[in-house]
Amino acid sequence: MATLSDVARLAGVTTATVSNVLRNPGKVKPSTVEKVEAAIASTGYRPNLMARALAEGKSSMVAMVLPDITNPFYPEFVAVAERVARDRNYFLMVCNTPDRPDIGLAYLKQITGTLAGGVLVLDTGILPGDIEQISNRRAPIVLASNEAIHYDEQVPHVVLDLHRAGEIAGQHLVELGHREVGAIVGCGLAGRQIVRLGGFESALQAAGLSLAPEHVRDTPDTVEGGRAAAESLLAANANITAIFATNDLMAYGAAQVLAERGIAVPQAMSLIGITDIHLARDMRPALTTVALHTETMATLAINLLLDLIEDPGHQPRSVKVPEPALVVRASTGVVAAI
Amino acid sequence: MATLSDVARLAGVTTATVSNVLRNPGKVKPSTVEKVEAAIASTGYRPNLMARALAEGKSSMVAMVLPDITNPFYPEFVAVAERVARDRNYFLMVCNTPDRPDIGLAYLKQITGTLAGGVLVLDTGILPGDIEQISNRRAPIVLASNEAIHYDEQVPHVVLDLHRAGEIAGQHLVELGHREVGAIVGCGLAGRQIVRLGGFESALQAAGLSLAPEHVRDTPDTVEGGRAAAESLLAANANITAIFATNDLMAYGAAQVLAERGIAVPQAMSLIGITDIHLARDMRPALTTVALHTETMATLAINLLLDLIEDPGHQPRSVKVPEPALVVRASTGVVAAI
Repeated sequence: MATLSDVARLAGVTTATVSNVLRNPGKVKPSTVEKVEAAIASTGYRPNLMARALAEGKSSMVAMVLPDITNPFYPEFVAVAERVARDRNYFLMVCNTPDRPDIGLAYLKQITGTLAGGVLVLDTGILPGDIEQISNRRAPIVLASNEAIHYDEQVPHVVLDLHRAGEIAGQHLVELGHREVGAIVGCGLAGRQIVRLGGFESALQAAGLSLAPEHVRDTPDTVEGGRAAAESLLAANANITAIFATNDLMAYGAAQVLAERGIAVPQAMSLIGITDIHLARDMRPALTTVALHTETMATLAINLLLDLIEDPGHQPRSVKVPEPALVVRASTGVVAAI
Repeated sequence: MATLSDVARLAGVTTATVSNVLRNPGKVKPSTVEKVEAAIASTGYRPNLMARALAEGKSSMVAMVLPDITNPFYPEFVAVAERVARDRNYFLMVCNTPDRPDIGLAYLKQITGTLAGGVLVLDTGILPGDIEQISNRRAPIVLASNEAIHYDEQVPHVVLDLHRAGEIAGQHLVELGHREVGAIVGCGLAGRQIVRLGGFESALQAAGLSLAPEHVRDTPDTVEGGRAAAESLLAANANITAIFATNDLMAYGAAQVLAERGIAVPQAMSLIGITDIHLARDMRPALTTVALHTETMATLAINLLLDLIEDPGHQPRSVKVPEPALVVRASTGVVAAI
């Protein structure tokens, strides 16, 4: 394989000049650029840029690993994280690890400390022990899972009160007078969204109510999953007046089923989600939801990662997202008189 | 900075053993793993994995650069490309380059031939000349822009007949009897979607109709952009019976405005888009659109890139996506008698 020296020799210039042409051709005399480019073409030389980044001692690239790029929460998170990273002179790359923790782990092994100077991991089902081990050996990893509460304090992470998010959703329905409610519970790579459900149930219990098992549906955390769960809930429970979905995407699917069946929202059925993805605001009726502050979460998470890259001793190693907040839109209302 | 040799010396093992522990700890005696890990911790050694990937002669990472990860077309494309790449033993990383071609170019310079053995570029507004130059010097770049027809044959690319897509949309509305139609034209990093609009106009002209300038709205290629354009069209043109949007996402925004104003779709207004994103199928009424075959396009594009990486002389250097196809759903109907 041709080397930089081969190119320099053929072009009759120094290797430093070849290097300049590769990096800043605008600063080299055009006739020299031409000679060097001709030499590159005739030798078939491929500049060894990875070696150069290495020689310069650092890569300014960081990465995010996430489980489902077609779930709009993740692109919304990425868009913010990329902007914040760029403001701090880092590039951000994203790895989508669909459906399998082993693939997520393979990505993490492949990129951590090699292609990326640090990695943000979201909800990929990768075991915390594996993450800690890779992180200790190579480069910082921050977990911004939205079910992060299971993670060890050893692993830097973003703290998000999902129990409180579920509780807020439950309190809102209780205050509107709902007594018989259905729950759609997402199951994805982060596991069953049981923390959110637990918060929801605690709000019902505080009001002397309970969530009957036949009012709960586990389903994939997708539009289709929400549709299937809503159909099943409606088929089995004629008396429910509200549906809680642990994620907005499933609430969006449920809303379609309600519209198709002519069940008026919120007059005949209230509907509430969690997250506040853009779609929640955009759908009609617009979705009442509990905002998880995606922008803030993404900003905190990426800044924590960059802080840890720049200073391995950085403290604190975890950051807390502001408490979830109820966003009342058009999909919830007082329970209809029966 | 501590080296591999420092770790080996301290642990009392060979450097090859340290290397094994870093790579395949499962295959090394646990007591040795322990010794080596203690030595890593006490020396503060950070394994130079980038050098190793380099020494092994290749990176199995490829990249995609795209302009707006919150536009669902791109995540749908990424999900497919990642799966196809992984089936061929490549990892895929994604770089989101919002709104500015200079940022796209910076990403491309940063990753091409360094972090990524090849790059797929979508609609980022980066000049073809810049792309060709980087590609020639470093590693293959394939363009899968959905406005790719402006690109030079020198740059490997995916050919997509967007003129035909617009024409199909126009023919469908003409066949349904529409005579006065509005057009919402997306303007993004790929430029104004003028090829699609041109195809649409040619279908009207073939039927002896024309698209009056006051029936056309340029707008950002987003939900909000579609909303604003629809509002403006409706305010100015009481007599239109159909709206064509050059992209589904804007049609989705337009559908919201129609629903809010109580304008029945398709009874009082037909609506058609282009692309066939998941949302087109999921929205209600479901959107009639012209499918660009995103899955096929992504599969062809990533396979072309990998072929070029594995064989720089690979032919052909461009691939053609099957002709766009009309997908009739619930949002279009025969024109209402006036």
